[in-house]
Amino acid sequence: MGDLLVKYFIGLDVGGTNIRGGAVSAEGKILYKSKMATNVSRGRQEVADNILALTHSIVSYIKTPPSAIGIGVAGLIRGEEGIIAESPNFPDWIEYDLKTPLEKALKLKVVVENDANAAAIGEGWLGAGAGEKNFCLLTLGTGIGGGVFLGGKIWRGVDGMAGELGHINIHPEGRRCGCGNRGCLEQYASAQGIIKSYQGRRPVKGEFSAKEIFNLAAKGNGEAIDILRGVGSSLGIAITDLVNILNVRLFIIGGGVAGAWDYFIEPLKGEIAERAYKVTGDNVRINKAILGDDAGMMGAARLAMGN
Amino acid sequence: MGDLLVKYFIGLDVGGTNIRGGAVSAEGKILYKSKMATNVSRGRQEVADNILALTHSIVSYIKTPPSAIGIGVAGLIRGEEGIIAESPNFPDWIEYDLKTPLEKALKLKVVVENDANAAAIGEGWLGAGAGEKNFCLLTLGTGIGGGVFLGGKIWRGVDGMAGELGHINIHPEGRRCGCGNRGCLEQYASAQGIIKSYQGRRPVKGEFSAKEIFNLAAKGNGEAIDILRGVGSSLGIAITDLVNILNVRLFIIGGGVAGAWDYFIEPLKGEIAERAYKVTGDNVRINKAILGDDAGMMGAARLAMGN
Repeated sequence: MGDLLVKYFIGLDVGGTNIRGGAVSAEGKILYKSKMATNVSRGRQEVADNILALTHSIVSYIKTPPSAIGIGVAGLIRGEEGIIAESPNFPDWIEYDLKTPLEKALKLKVVVENDANAAAIGEGWLGAGAGEKNFCLLTLGTGIGGGVFLGGKIWRGVDGMAGELGHINIHPEGRRCGCGNRGCLEQYASAQGIIKSYQGRRPVKGEFSAKEIFNLAAKGNGEAIDILRGVGSSLGIAITDLVNILNVRLFIIGGGVAGAWDYFIEPLKGEIAERAYKVTGDNVRINKAILGDDAGMMGAARLAMGN
Repeated sequence: MGDLLVKYFIGLDVGGTNIRGGAVSAEGKILYKSKMATNVSRGRQEVADNILALTHSIVSYIKTPPSAIGIGVAGLIRGEEGIIAESPNFPDWIEYDLKTPLEKALKLKVVVENDANAAAIGEGWLGAGAGEKNFCLLTLGTGIGGGVFLGGKIWRGVDGMAGELGHINIHPEGRRCGCGNRGCLEQYASAQGIIKSYQGRRPVKGEFSAKEIFNLAAKGNGEAIDILRGVGSSLGIAITDLVNILNVRLFIIGGGVAGAWDYFIEPLKGEIAERAYKVTGDNVRINKAILGDDAGMMGAARLAMGN
């Protein structure tokens, strides 16, 4: 019997589009993974049901229950209780306790964490930050997610809202941002920001994605290349702020926009070389995230393990 | 015999102009304090001799040796060894070991810390941050010193260079800064920055101090008032960055420029209200530093105590 028992943890990454789930061993091996649609529009009970269904499908595959479950979800997570105070993806998740009903239904410990923090924990465990005690993660997607890892632990801040690195100010009188500020990094270095930069140069009809701007750049289009180089300059200004405030050496960049790496990395490093103190700037390393879409799931599983 | 023995610690704040020293009890009572000229121009041996002389004068006043000595000094302090890697005030202090010769001469434990960090530790011990686990200190003097206090401890960063809050970027194409960057907070919200703002509006002959601009503002001069309100806007932009990155609630502002509090506090709070997330911005408190010139000395003494 004993050797049939598998000790593992479930990590779930609950995004606006998909729920990704995985069975992860204590060593970080993914034993099984699966995803399903989140179906946000059908309300929070359906999302909770889908989380439960995905969990059951993992358990029935592995044939033993996990030791604990970790869930990463976008939004403001309140302290140890894991209450979701609010979430950009789920408008009806206000002061929402996702954790307690799941714990009751599954008879297991459930840990809830902000998804960007979960991704940083994942990259810090087995990804581009493996073995590093201090780094910042910037996930450049539709918006920008951030995680601040200090002294071997994620820094959550007083209200659980630290690491909003996409809202570092780049241009005080710049583009209006959804957060209320103007000229946030997110307005220049996210997929949305890239589209705005392109629209600022020429009118765009209908749907237009950042991917199309990447394709234009790949064909040698000067305007598109210029915009992607601008992503690097904006990142360089924000990372210099982080170097001056936190004196962290490692910055990990992930998300879909990291696909434009070859266009933005040189201007990014140029800004740091020009703007940061030499003694700290010279030590800065910019690494590409390596866990991709698994980062949040892996980090959530790692959190479920505890210390 | 026993009741004649006083248990105390010496805190020293070694500035570019003066060395301030104090005998501080474990409860934070200043038993005696004194200062003397630093005499930077006479070289590092003379400065070290002056530190020793001030220490001896304190010991001879108290009549018992202290338990340990803490020293705050501007510059990059390397890790536990307390080696001064470089210092803006002391050009010949490069990889300088101030600590070991003092320990030998005094037969006492000596701890060396960055002066802005020492001031933050002082304010966090008995000043405007007493009892607070998380805050940032901004000391607005000729330049801007900073300290980041997270989870009840000063955050020093990987190279001991964290907390350079005066070099948070405010205007990416703004005024050139001594650090290499452009448009740093220090260029707008320090005494030097205030003078530059005034000079940008009207030519100034000879020596002109920030104090004179404060006096003009006090007399109702619109231009001077405008410049001091601009200090608040710049601080508000930088503090919003800190709120988004660290989600700290308390910001302590000290230094000579804090004398212009009544002019800058309202625009400062206005920027945070406009730029920060409501959920974190609403919790922000801006407090005036209360230890004044004693902050660094008190913090250095607190460090000497250990944990």
